[in-house]
Amino acid sequence: MIGASGYGGLQTLRLLHAHPDLQVTFLGGERSSGKRWSELVPFLPLEQDLVVQSPDAEGIAAAADLAVLSLPNGLAAGLAPALLERGVKVVDLSADFRYRSLAQWQEVYKSEAALLDRRDGDLCAEAVYGLVEWEEARIRQARLVAAPGCFPTASLLALLPFLKQGLIECGGIVIDAKTGTSGGGRAAKEHLLLAEASEAVAPYGVVGHRHTSEIEQQASLAAGQEIQLQFTPHLMPMVRGLLATVYGRLRDPGLTADDCTTLLQAAYRHCPTVRVLPVGTYPSTKWVRQTNACLLSVQVDKRTGQLIVISAIDNLIKGQAGQGVQCLNLMAGLPAGTGLPLVPFYP
Amino acid sequence: MIGASGYGGLQTLRLLHAHPDLQVTFLGGERSSGKRWSELVPFLPLEQDLVVQSPDAEGIAAAADLAVLSLPNGLAAGLAPALLERGVKVVDLSADFRYRSLAQWQEVYKSEAALLDRRDGDLCAEAVYGLVEWEEARIRQARLVAAPGCFPTASLLALLPFLKQGLIECGGIVIDAKTGTSGGGRAAKEHLLLAEASEAVAPYGVVGHRHTSEIEQQASLAAGQEIQLQFTPHLMPMVRGLLATVYGRLRDPGLTADDCTTLLQAAYRHCPTVRVLPVGTYPSTKWVRQTNACLLSVQVDKRTGQLIVISAIDNLIKGQAGQGVQCLNLMAGLPAGTGLPLVPFYP
Amino acid sequence: MIGASGYGGLQTLRLLHAHPDLQVTFLGGERSSGKRWSELVPFLPLEQDLVVQSPDAEGIAAAADLAVLSLPNGLAAGLAPALLERGVKVVDLSADFRYRSLAQWQEVYKSEAALLDRRDGDLCAEAVYGLVEWEEARIRQARLVAAPGCFPTASLLALLPFLKQGLIECGGIVIDAKTGTSGGGRAAKEHLLLAEASEAVAPYGVVGHRHTSEIEQQASLAAGQEIQLQFTPHLMPMVRGLLATVYGRLRDPGLTADDCTTLLQAAYRHCPTVRVLPVGTYPSTKWVRQTNACLLSVQVDKRTGQLIVISAIDNLIKGQAGQGVQCLNLMAGLPAGTGLPLVPFYP
Amino acid sequence: MIGASGYGGLQTLRLLHAHPDLQVTFLGGERSSGKRWSELVPFLPLEQDLVVQSPDAEGIAAAADLAVLSLPNGLAAGLAPALLERGVKVVDLSADFRYRSLAQWQEVYKSEAALLDRRDGDLCAEAVYGLVEWEEARIRQARLVAAPGCFPTASLLALLPFLKQGLIECGGIVIDAKTGTSGGGRAAKEHLLLAEASEAVAPYGVVGHRHTSEIEQQASLAAGQEIQLQFTPHLMPMVRGLLATVYGRLRDPGLTADDCTTLLQAAYRHCPTVRVLPVGTYPSTKWVRQTNACLLSVQVDKRTGQLIVISAIDNLIKGQAGQGVQCLNLMAGLPAGTGLPLVPFYP
Repeated sequence: MIGASGYGGLQTLRLLHAHPDLQVTFLGGERSSGKRWSELVPFLPLEQDLVVQSPDAEGIAAAADLAVLSLPNGLAAGLAPALLERGVKVVDLSADFRYRSLAQWQEVYKSEAALLDRRDGDLCAEAVYGLVEWEEARIRQARLVAAPGCFPTASLLALLPFLKQGLIECGGIVIDAKTGTSGGGRAAKEHLLLAEASEAVAPYGVVGHRHTSEIEQQASLAAGQEIQLQFTPHLMPMVRGLLATVYGRLRDPGLTADDCTTLLQAAYRHCPTVRVLPVGTYPSTKWVRQTNACLLSVQVDKRTGQLIVISAIDNLIKGQAGQGVQCLNLMAGLPAGTGLPLVPFYP
Repeated sequence: MIGASGYGGLQTLRLLHAHPDLQVTFLGGERSSGKRWSELVPFLPLEQDLVVQSPDAEGIAAAADLAVLSLPNGLAAGLAPALLERGVKVVDLSADFRYRSLAQWQEVYKSEAALLDRRDGDLCAEAVYGLVEWEEARIRQARLVAAPGCFPTASLLALLPFLKQGLIECGGIVIDAKTGTSGGGRAAKEHLLLAEASEAVAPYGVVGHRHTSEIEQQASLAAGQEIQLQFTPHLMPMVRGLLATVYGRLRDPGLTADDCTTLLQAAYRHCPTVRVLPVGTYPSTKWVRQTNACLLSVQVDKRTGQLIVISAIDNLIKGQAGQGVQCLNLMAGLPAGTGLPLVPFYP
Repeated sequence: MIGASGYGGLQTLRLLHAHPDLQVTFLGGERSSGKRWSELVPFLPLEQDLVVQSPDAEGIAAAADLAVLSLPNGLAAGLAPALLERGVKVVDLSADFRYRSLAQWQEVYKSEAALLDRRDGDLCAEAVYGLVEWEEARIRQARLVAAPGCFPTASLLALLPFLKQGLIECGGIVIDAKTGTSGGGRAAKEHLLLAEASEAVAPYGVVGHRHTSEIEQQASLAAGQEIQLQFTPHLMPMVRGLLATVYGRLRDPGLTADDCTTLLQAAYRHCPTVRVLPVGTYPSTKWVRQTNACLLSVQVDKRTGQLIVISAIDNLIKGQAGQGVQCLNLMAGLPAGTGLPLVPFYP
Repeated sequence: MIGASGYGGLQTLRLLHAHPDLQVTFLGGERSSGKRWSELVPFLPLEQDLVVQSPDAEGIAAAADLAVLSLPNGLAAGLAPALLERGVKVVDLSADFRYRSLAQWQEVYKSEAALLDRRDGDLCAEAVYGLVEWEEARIRQARLVAAPGCFPTASLLALLPFLKQGLIECGGIVIDAKTGTSGGGRAAKEHLLLAEASEAVAPYGVVGHRHTSEIEQQASLAAGQEIQLQFTPHLMPMVRGLLATVYGRLRDPGLTADDCTTLLQAAYRHCPTVRVLPVGTYPSTKWVRQTNACLLSVQVDKRTGQLIVISAIDNLIKGQAGQGVQCLNLMAGLPAGTGLPLVPFYP
């Protein structure tokens, strides 16, 4: 596990702590290098009290078969090639390998690209987009998996079945998303202070948020034509949880909410992570908190012909670390859901 | 003030407590009738420690020139006529007089209508919709004002300038709204418990929420043609604050966010309650908490031709009691903003 | 599981859902009798989708060897005798059997006692107080276990080692406790609404809270002399978590925080549920959230001779359902901690 | 106003915004120097849109008669002498002048003292401790006022009447205090992130928190003998509000809660900021949020002879900026409460 003390790292370690088949053998981190885990994180005792080490490819390869990278954008691209060369399979939680073309990444992640001379276009092309419910076979064979962003995960699980079957129009899609503040990471920032973010709801990155292009890439692939859509994230006064409210126009105005629910159930009938709720029952992010589940619910407005799909996940589990562990599982030859909770502690 | 100990009542009393020209002379309430205010509400001492009385029209008319009704839907319709007959002007915070036709109310508020034999179609027609920034002249002359709902207030302040000028298409409008739990009132309900609503975001009333029809009525009047739109409210883990993210398609794809901002500023140049933020600055509900202000911000996606207007209010002040006091002010011949705060205590 | 849809029931079911050896075979509830579990609680799918039944002793005995009662105070006393007669062992999460004498219960739970003609003094005497770390051997043999209250659990785990060894004075003990709102249960009450309880800290039951007598009973037994102490609970703006800050005067002013930490570590060396933190590290309730762990930390003020013990638990797990499952485990011949999480998902 | 964009500054500016007699003429800040206020703080428009300036004594003296310093500990001591020399009266919100002796400050604020060569022992002796309810006459005459810390304010308002009259023992006093996270300031720190501090209660600074010595200094002066007490602060998952639960032993065991309530009411009969609640009504921090009020409530445990005083304030208003404005008012010859709210917006 590289980048152990951020939220992605903490979640991954917590999930692996209860995992029957995988074991943590290396903790990598720059800032905390040389420190014993139990001093750094008194609340999450690991069976082996490892010392955090500087993330050097040689050392990692000596200790592990699989690596999870939870690093700021741009850093995984520096480490992944050396790991792959040494036979270590990699799950990257950052955006570095989420685009099929390096040029696309460089356009979207401009500021990071300006600081790096990436020439790993071949790895970008090789990397598998780790949306497990849609890419399971390819992930199983992959050396390098890019775990999707939290917003793309929730949005695509809602959209893909309808786009694949051509049931909604490709224009005019609106995704209005809401996330807890843990999505902003553990580094201290003023706007994520409790005093600032509590009792507050606000949008950010209106028009042009980076996840827009990630969603559009996968949506376009599914639809077989280029899709441009509206994606607006909002910051919520809560720790974790992500809700995407997805609006699209039905091509066939005769389709009902029941029809669409049936369609979704069929699409995900082999996916224990995705549960489709009965018409009229809408998911709360609390129903999936600290689980790897995604809850979906559909409604249709007959007057306007609009389809509304609600999608709820835990941004740190299904939206990040849990999906990463699903990928790890597949790459290790295990069932995707091994060791991953699907049921919340409520309330 | 009738219905004093609910949130609408508490806010109104707090605002009137600091009001230079209006004075509370009667507190009406059924459940708390006979009790002294200071026993009921130890945290909001009023200068005169009135005894709460059963809301009888005769008694109210003897004590007051103006009445604010903060009652469950259906009850104001029972009390308002008797007050008007006795020369008491009425601001009603419920939905009873928000529709121009009684039939429309009966259709939308079916369950309430089933219990009542309302025959006051003339009063429905006479009542003025109290959206102060757009109806100031008529409110000033009114005997009976229906204060708008919280969602309609935030949504219409964002939409009306664009609809009036025909700048957006009438179809395909999406309003994705987020509100604090105080919008659900003070009566104890399981889903509004802190243990349930905290760390949770969920939609409710997807397709068919009652405020849809209220927004559509006013939007249609402004546009001069019938509008049907998508309105989806979401419950947020916070006490107060309401954000509406409004999506519409620009008729002229050449319009920029700056153009639209200028338009909004012009539309509200005489309205101190509405402040339009510079392009790229998005309001947080916290910026308007416990104020009567509405903050607006506009963005345009040139790729998709979509206009996005963000509108933030305090659901209990501009969305309810503060707008009610604005109406009271106008009906009493005062400037609309008298005694109403526009600047928050932050954080 | 009797009383399945309250918080005690939900937690117990969630814990048993992941339990390797115990299985839920009966769901009892009055209000929800006749309903299928999946309709009642869409967010916690159980493997067997049982129908909730009226809690009748005969039916329970036919289905189960062990029963957990999570009922309002006074109701367990009505059901437990019939279950015991039929050979069903009982863990009661209410206060009905927490006192060694019926008279004591009748004095403390006056209002409940007034409605009941309890004559089960023998069962009160027989029942074992289920504080697992101190009563493991007796619980293993018990037919009837009274799971301790949440405040007594946190307080006694902090106090008992010092009282047993006579290290603090018996007079002048102060317990200042803080709890999340889920401690007030799932029934809707105004003061537990998010709008009321959020952004609010307040004491309640100052002098005379019922848990005072429960703590005093066990503390007196441990000290071998009667103890009267000060216990003040406070309601916190959070869902779950309980912190007790316990103040006592050291008999030997030479004892240091290190000495006291060593003493606690020795007292709990065989208890995986209790973890004693190094001097200067203080637990957050978040470090034990959704776990069955108790974290303790000690500090000593040399100037004043005061000992301060901080004790953190999850009020619904170690403070209620988790401790109940520990008792179940022991009564079923399993290790106490079977199936119980000790490590949190953070943040 | 020096240090305008921190929480102390923001609150002071918000209070002065609504002040009938005082006007803000200078905004001082290092980091934001040269920036226009409206760019820095879009949510708090000031009538004059001043440019923030580097806090230079000459410039301040040219613009203002009174200065409020809201700076990190140690910095006010650098600026205050130059201001006083130029005839500017100073209210300092930091701890720099809260101790009557420089040596005491140097002992308590060791790390700050190590970086500074303070020689202003005479100013420390001259400065008035700005606890308005007890020092009004001296503040009115003062050139330099040290506004008390938030914890000392709540604690001393509860304790002083009892200590002055010798009604409680000087030993064994325990103050268990709870504060919102805004008390930690606006600078970004990991432990104050919403993701960390939400759903969490934890103590900090157990034994030896700096406010202990400040409380002891004033308590000792009131009692006429040296007092050493236990003070334990806890961080609460909320933005603002501070509750102190104060435990002391009554000298006369015959005193009742009613007696003690009467005593408190007499002590504060001329202080509109302090309101003593009836016996059995306990204040919530929410009842004083965004006000300058302090609510007190008393309870007595006859069994143990313990007095319990609950004290609730808003940590940023009565605990900081509001008390600062009270001092400003007095120094400007105005009534202490001018322009300060005493009634909350609830909920």
